[in-house]
Amino acid sequence: MSTFVRFEHGGRTAFGLVNSSEVQELSGGLFDAPTPAGKVHSLDSLKLLAPVVPSKILAVGLNYRSHLGNRPEPANPEIFYKPVTSLQNPNEPIVLPPDAQDVHFEGELVIVIGKTLRNASRDEAAAAVFGVTCGNDVSDRNWQRGPNADRQWWRAKGCDTFAPLGPWIVTGIEYDDLALATRVNGETLQQQRTSDLIFRVPETLSFISRYVTLTPGDLLYTGTPGNTKAMKSGDVVEIEIQNIGVLRNPVK
Amino acid sequence: MSTFVRFEHGGRTAFGLVNSSEVQELSGGLFDAPTPAGKVHSLDSLKLLAPVVPSKILAVGLNYRSHLGNRPEPANPEIFYKPVTSLQNPNEPIVLPPDAQDVHFEGELVIVIGKTLRNASRDEAAAAVFGVTCGNDVSDRNWQRGPNADRQWWRAKGCDTFAPLGPWIVTGIEYDDLALATRVNGETLQQQRTSDLIFRVPETLSFISRYVTLTPGDLLYTGTPGNTKAMKSGDVVEIEIQNIGVLRNPVK
Repeated sequence: MSTFVRFEHGGRTAFGLVNSSEVQELSGGLFDAPTPAGKVHSLDSLKLLAPVVPSKILAVGLNYRSHLGNRPEPANPEIFYKPVTSLQNPNEPIVLPPDAQDVHFEGELVIVIGKTLRNASRDEAAAAVFGVTCGNDVSDRNWQRGPNADRQWWRAKGCDTFAPLGPWIVTGIEYDDLALATRVNGETLQQQRTSDLIFRVPETLSFISRYVTLTPGDLLYTGTPGNTKAMKSGDVVEIEIQNIGVLRNPVK
Repeated sequence: MSTFVRFEHGGRTAFGLVNSSEVQELSGGLFDAPTPAGKVHSLDSLKLLAPVVPSKILAVGLNYRSHLGNRPEPANPEIFYKPVTSLQNPNEPIVLPPDAQDVHFEGELVIVIGKTLRNASRDEAAAAVFGVTCGNDVSDRNWQRGPNADRQWWRAKGCDTFAPLGPWIVTGIEYDDLALATRVNGETLQQQRTSDLIFRVPETLSFISRYVTLTPGDLLYTGTPGNTKAMKSGDVVEIEIQNIGVLRNPVK
């Protein structure tokens, strides 16, 4: 089990390996055998960034029975894209667009891909998972399914800051039965285990890879459980996943 | 007016400036003042690539009156994303997925963004257009709107090879009244002028930038006119736009 951060320090950006309260700075990328750069920082002294720079972000809709309501279970994973510009760093704000009306949190387990996947089996897909982190699939319900909804979820799911990610990537842990909780201003509003996912991660990745090649760094937001609520300026949203950590973002 | 290609030659990839049948190789990227690398190639000797490496691809649906059929004109540009892995080079095949049933061509004018756009006015958006090229917004109608359609168009519009682009980027031309034609095996199946677009390019880019920041290299597929048809293995699809060129791809 290792914990990787991406950080900004002294005007530069680097990856680092977390060892309790210390971070060993790494040279190079996450997926090309990074080596220690010979510098150690205290974790507290670093500005943490979204822990990876993906070439694309995929997400699954309707992937917890508890989130379906009256809707039938999908036959296949219901995939959509979030643009890379929607990523937001830990502790930085989710910015509500002036004309957004009903912007909800969605606490999610996020998978970081470590190897190229094309027409992959479930076993190959499972072996290509680099690690896991926490994500918030921020969603405007009005643009998503209001009376004048857009045809596609480009704004509903894709506005700048609508994909908080972090605080770090944890590798080498079992991620198919972890407790996930979302809190707003300290009140727990989502609580579920990742074992309740309808489509498990290897199945979803294998399915996607029949159509769309996944490359190292790509992200999969795996879906949100239960019910979600609108956020308002001044709120603080925390997504906590067992054995990973807490992703915290203010709303403004 | 300049014409930029991206190419592969002797095992490396570079941008180049086309001068009739010759290509002057450039050092650096397209958007950071590339300089001549001191090498000149014959255009015929180069393998042309999709002429830009975008961080994201946006597209507009229902943007020509002639493509609407009975559907009402949209109130706003109807935007969606295509993943970067859907790009295909000129002359390389559009690959039909084994279980795709109704894969159509969509000939389109494509805009290449040259400057970061966030909350931009129409004038700012117009000034941020680096150049234009031809694109094919390949679309499986069954996954898009068949009886068991996906909720989002991730496969319908996003499979590998579903975004042919090229053959080159032309800068410094007026692009709002150009003839566009799509031919399959030499037969013209789409023919329209870009002046028939419902939402013009500066308006669309300005609208997008209120929600999603556009960055240099990002692409906007502007929509397709008229009617489209299914393609089959062995077909050759050509998208020709006046003053730009011909994007040609076989289907397999």
